[in-house]
Amino acid sequence: MNIKISKRMSKPDFQGEFTAGILKAAADPTLISFAGGLPNPVSFPVHAMDDAADKVLKASGVQALQYSGTQGYLPLRKYIAERYKKMDIEVDPSEIIITNGSQQALDMFAAVMLDPGDKIIMEKPTYLVALQTFHLYDPVVLSVDLNDDGIDVEQLKAAVAQKPQFIYLIPNFQNPTGLTYTEEVRAKAAEVFKGSNVMVLEDNPYGELRFSGKEGHSFAWYLGEQCCLLGTFSKIVSPGMRIGWIVCKQKDIFEKLLNYKSTMDLHTNIFCQMVLTQYLSENDLDEHIEKTKVLYKQKAEYMMSCMAKYFPEGVSYTKPEGGMFIWATLPEGVKAVDVQAEAIKKGVAVCAGDPFYEDERGVRTMRLNYSNSSDEQMDKGIKLLSEAISEVMAK
Amino acid sequence: MNIKISKRMSKPDFQGEFTAGILKAAADPTLISFAGGLPNPVSFPVHAMDDAADKVLKASGVQALQYSGTQGYLPLRKYIAERYKKMDIEVDPSEIIITNGSQQALDMFAAVMLDPGDKIIMEKPTYLVALQTFHLYDPVVLSVDLNDDGIDVEQLKAAVAQKPQFIYLIPNFQNPTGLTYTEEVRAKAAEVFKGSNVMVLEDNPYGELRFSGKEGHSFAWYLGEQCCLLGTFSKIVSPGMRIGWIVCKQKDIFEKLLNYKSTMDLHTNIFCQMVLTQYLSENDLDEHIEKTKVLYKQKAEYMMSCMAKYFPEGVSYTKPEGGMFIWATLPEGVKAVDVQAEAIKKGVAVCAGDPFYEDERGVRTMRLNYSNSSDEQMDKGIKLLSEAISEVMAK
Repeated sequence: MNIKISKRMSKPDFQGEFTAGILKAAADPTLISFAGGLPNPVSFPVHAMDDAADKVLKASGVQALQYSGTQGYLPLRKYIAERYKKMDIEVDPSEIIITNGSQQALDMFAAVMLDPGDKIIMEKPTYLVALQTFHLYDPVVLSVDLNDDGIDVEQLKAAVAQKPQFIYLIPNFQNPTGLTYTEEVRAKAAEVFKGSNVMVLEDNPYGELRFSGKEGHSFAWYLGEQCCLLGTFSKIVSPGMRIGWIVCKQKDIFEKLLNYKSTMDLHTNIFCQMVLTQYLSENDLDEHIEKTKVLYKQKAEYMMSCMAKYFPEGVSYTKPEGGMFIWATLPEGVKAVDVQAEAIKKGVAVCAGDPFYEDERGVRTMRLNYSNSSDEQMDKGIKLLSEAISEVMAK
Repeated sequence: MNIKISKRMSKPDFQGEFTAGILKAAADPTLISFAGGLPNPVSFPVHAMDDAADKVLKASGVQALQYSGTQGYLPLRKYIAERYKKMDIEVDPSEIIITNGSQQALDMFAAVMLDPGDKIIMEKPTYLVALQTFHLYDPVVLSVDLNDDGIDVEQLKAAVAQKPQFIYLIPNFQNPTGLTYTEEVRAKAAEVFKGSNVMVLEDNPYGELRFSGKEGHSFAWYLGEQCCLLGTFSKIVSPGMRIGWIVCKQKDIFEKLLNYKSTMDLHTNIFCQMVLTQYLSENDLDEHIEKTKVLYKQKAEYMMSCMAKYFPEGVSYTKPEGGMFIWATLPEGVKAVDVQAEAIKKGVAVCAGDPFYEDERGVRTMRLNYSNSSDEQMDKGIKLLSEAISEVMAK
């Protein structure tokens, strides 16, 4: 039989081989993995969730098992809307769609906004699966450098002048760099967007995991309906339930997002939506997050102390104020893919920077995840990684 | 701000207004609704699911709340593979991907198989949300009549000669008609496919809900890897959990389906996958389905008895051997949309046939769902519907 696969899925997988490698490393118990982005399971509220599931099935079992509306469970949308008040943003539950993790919302937004050849702006580097998703829609990607204080505003001006459809950005503890925009950069970037037709898609999976420094304003605070917000419970409660959301105040886009979602899978599983809502109604999420932050702060500091102890001269790295990642930069001429290959031989998985860029390859940056390793693993893993770096440098 | 929506989502919504109307009617407690396709909640195993959720969270809570693999929970895939033995089909768990209801698998399959302008074959009429999904990929739809004994084989030959990418069909208790292919038609249609490059996408959401007649062979029995199978727990356990699957033995297509799914939403919620698997391991699904079948048989027969009693002369309807739908045909010159409009004024929601066709409008067919109404509602609803038909006929 002669099978023809669509052009869309025949293009060389957009760094699919990297993603596959990351997932494989994360699943391999013989490796010390700094490659993934898994929350620490210590942070999962297993007992409270058991209690919540029991209550939902006893009180509203039929509703939890029956078909439901596409937009998502109203009490959950109310909870999310209420929580935005902490960020000084007005969100109405009617402006929220519950999605299968915020990952699904990336596809929804791209499907509604992009025709082939349309331009989009991405941070450089950026979240690799966002790059993968958007590439399904054949856009022209304009990459704008991410500096230590946030997106490069001069480059941003030039990119916005090219009339892109939207920009995708992660202002807090960015994936992969761990960097956070300063308030000054946020204000300046917002000025660049104002008056343009560029929609801002702000992703914020790690925003609540701040363990030092001061929270900056969301672009929604600056821009109102010009900014759509992505959110998720994956990093603060549970990724396995696949519950994220998109906030969209722009009515034309909202209606299309909802139509598209209904065609994709009718609705997100209502059982998990109701169990999560029950859990949230009876537990203090901030208290729960506080524990996770204490844990991740210790993990980040411990990993940095290992880096200071073992890394050879000339390796620098970001100091995150929250989130799950540290971004290391190797000395000139040292390729991260070579270090990754050496490290894996020693039993340590890291993620070379390459897949986080639209078109740069052979870069000297790499992403290190600290949320999901024990101190012992970190000490051993960073020591072995340092040896791998030294060996590649010596070549 | 000047918003540009993608062409994909700017096309007149493929009958989106019908779907919206159906969902709205199903949610309106003041209406008697025969418009939807909801399972009867009496059939939901609420207590057993509560027990299963408790066991999963107590024994494997961390796994149920953490990220998981894209392909889906292996014990669930094993269960599904094992169950195909009853249908005399060999399926390996490695050939299955768990999806967010079988609805998501429709999009996955279309994304992997279709370039704009590619041809596909659909039954006429067919499942409206399949039409909606496939239309996102700009195919040329070849509609082939569905006769009382199944797809029209002569028309099918002509359509296959046009070298389409795939055919989508529902051989058992089809949505919307309730019709089932005879074994003779299955065998003849399979002969038409053999030797061609047409992939067969067989949807079978209602297949296990047979309350009379004899089960026919799946196209996978005739065609092996030329046939991909869609399945779902929505109609036999719970739609709210959104757990369906696709079986694909063709390795090139399988790999692309998996890549695409991982980009769409990483994986289907593992919490529900594990709870469902726990439920299935401790409860006899066949026994559970048996109860549902007894209920639906009674419902179908009761609805037909009401139709015999109240329908005016000249209205005919299919006699389903299972599933959830009856398909009624109005007398020549009577439009189903007019009957639908009259009926809703009287408090009864039905689904005019129009959205189930690629391009016919003003048809005289309509879909009636019997799974989710009480006998009282049926008697009253069919009586009022009959009055609506008579009024439209008299105009």
